[in-house]
Amino acid sequence: MNGADFSPWVSARQQAVEDALERWVPADAPAGLGLAMRYGVLDGGKRLRPLLVMAACEALDGHAEAALRAAVAVELIHAYSLVHDDMPCMDNDVLRRGKPTVHVQFGEAQAMLAGDAMQALAFEVLTPDFSNDAGVEPALQARLVSLLARSAGHAGMAGGQAIDLASIGHALGEPALSDMHRRKTGALLQASVLMGAACGQTTPKVWQALSDYGAAIGLAFQVVDDILDVTQASETLGKTAGKDLDHNKPTYVSVLGLDAARRHADALREQAHAALTACGLGARAGALAVLADKVVQREN
Amino acid sequence: MNGADFSPWVSARQQAVEDALERWVPADAPAGLGLAMRYGVLDGGKRLRPLLVMAACEALDGHAEAALRAAVAVELIHAYSLVHDDMPCMDNDVLRRGKPTVHVQFGEAQAMLAGDAMQALAFEVLTPDFSNDAGVEPALQARLVSLLARSAGHAGMAGGQAIDLASIGHALGEPALSDMHRRKTGALLQASVLMGAACGQTTPKVWQALSDYGAAIGLAFQVVDDILDVTQASETLGKTAGKDLDHNKPTYVSVLGLDAARRHADALREQAHAALTACGLGARAGALAVLADKVVQREN
Repeated sequence: MNGADFSPWVSARQQAVEDALERWVPADAPAGLGLAMRYGVLDGGKRLRPLLVMAACEALDGHAEAALRAAVAVELIHAYSLVHDDMPCMDNDVLRRGKPTVHVQFGEAQAMLAGDAMQALAFEVLTPDFSNDAGVEPALQARLVSLLARSAGHAGMAGGQAIDLASIGHALGEPALSDMHRRKTGALLQASVLMGAACGQTTPKVWQALSDYGAAIGLAFQVVDDILDVTQASETLGKTAGKDLDHNKPTYVSVLGLDAARRHADALREQAHAALTACGLGARAGALAVLADKVVQREN
Repeated sequence: MNGADFSPWVSARQQAVEDALERWVPADAPAGLGLAMRYGVLDGGKRLRPLLVMAACEALDGHAEAALRAAVAVELIHAYSLVHDDMPCMDNDVLRRGKPTVHVQFGEAQAMLAGDAMQALAFEVLTPDFSNDAGVEPALQARLVSLLARSAGHAGMAGGQAIDLASIGHALGEPALSDMHRRKTGALLQASVLMGAACGQTTPKVWQALSDYGAAIGLAFQVVDDILDVTQASETLGKTAGKDLDHNKPTYVSVLGLDAARRHADALREQAHAALTACGLGARAGALAVLADKVVQREN
């Protein structure tokens, strides 16, 4: 897949995810809760995690309906984590994707509840009550729940956030920083790839290679995030730039320096490509290959 | 089942749930997160929801391992909701089960993360990766996730909490109050019964009757909660008494008056018993029958 093919591939899938979120995140949930949930997840972001789910599923010619549900579920988990992360007791951020954050718009209590309900909704979306045979078989439903819950929980994203909190003002070595980011950001990105893979048939070798790919781009994403935090303006990022430094948080830039951080991101991109080659999926993995490049070369 | 049989029945199951929580809620989750999670869920409460799961499963001679996992999962959801509900942006409560609340003990950020990770853990516990045949079949795993996620999310518990927030200082009629409480408290109690039922074989008639039973005791629980809030001291409750009045929240007592609220609780208890009779399970539903009485007759 080349750049000219990739752009319409992305647009079509972003639209499918947006349509599904529009359909499945209820505007009519009680007392404005649905509005806060929709504000937190609709019309925002590059939908990188959904794209990874769908690219991995398509590489294996997997179950498209299952992948769409997995894509929406992982985006709901990501979006809820941003809603909670922005709250005053965490990062206390007022700007996200160029808009006021959810707690600024709806109040802290509603933001906390909206995040909680978005997490629950992710698992609802994965376990639909199908009345016909067009649905996702229960064993796949359970597998997707298992992958998502583990990547979102104490051993994954939430655990990484706890390390992040505890690390403020502390010097971390590269191994500790890598461990934190593999959990905080990497786990959910890797799970996106594996949820997509679970929608198809894989050998243990292909599963492992896709897992390696997911781990590499998961960490690369955060290294680049750290780089962009110091090199880009808030307007480009759509969120507050320079906040890691302001919060005295250890980052790849503060630990390795800017040049070494950039080299590290490139090395991870190469690891991701090597893992794809090991999959032996050839051109079918084209979207995954371009996504690895985009993760490293993005500007926001 | 009489009172003398019930007490050892409860103790054995409370112990099994405590042991499972001890095993499955990880002390070693990163940066103290596991300690906050364990503080929020271990060694606390009557474990009513787990008892309902297990009583319903046993009434149908269902899958005991699945019911234990469902019991732990629903308790994790309940406990996370208390952790978040006690935070300053919600009820701002400092006392829970006679101990300082999680955010008082560990800070607000860790409390929010602990609650988030407890919710994820509930779905991890429901979808174990069994390597042998002793486990829970995937279709049952998916069914349990579906029931739990829907009762915890926007249409259930979180939706009820949003109504609760919005209702402060407003006069609600009995129908609106009932709708709020059916979601906020009732949905998870009803789901406990249905998760237990899903662990066994049911006819549509038995399923419906158990659903009616769960709805009745779910609402009865909250009516009694409202009564105890005005009639009991904080020491008896293990949490701050009189807080609904202090927070200017509508309750069954403020809407109906104390005597009518008590009559309402009794009527719901009778509905629960009638539903059990309709199940036709006879003595096998003994624990469910006693639990309906205990929900209404409890003193804390």
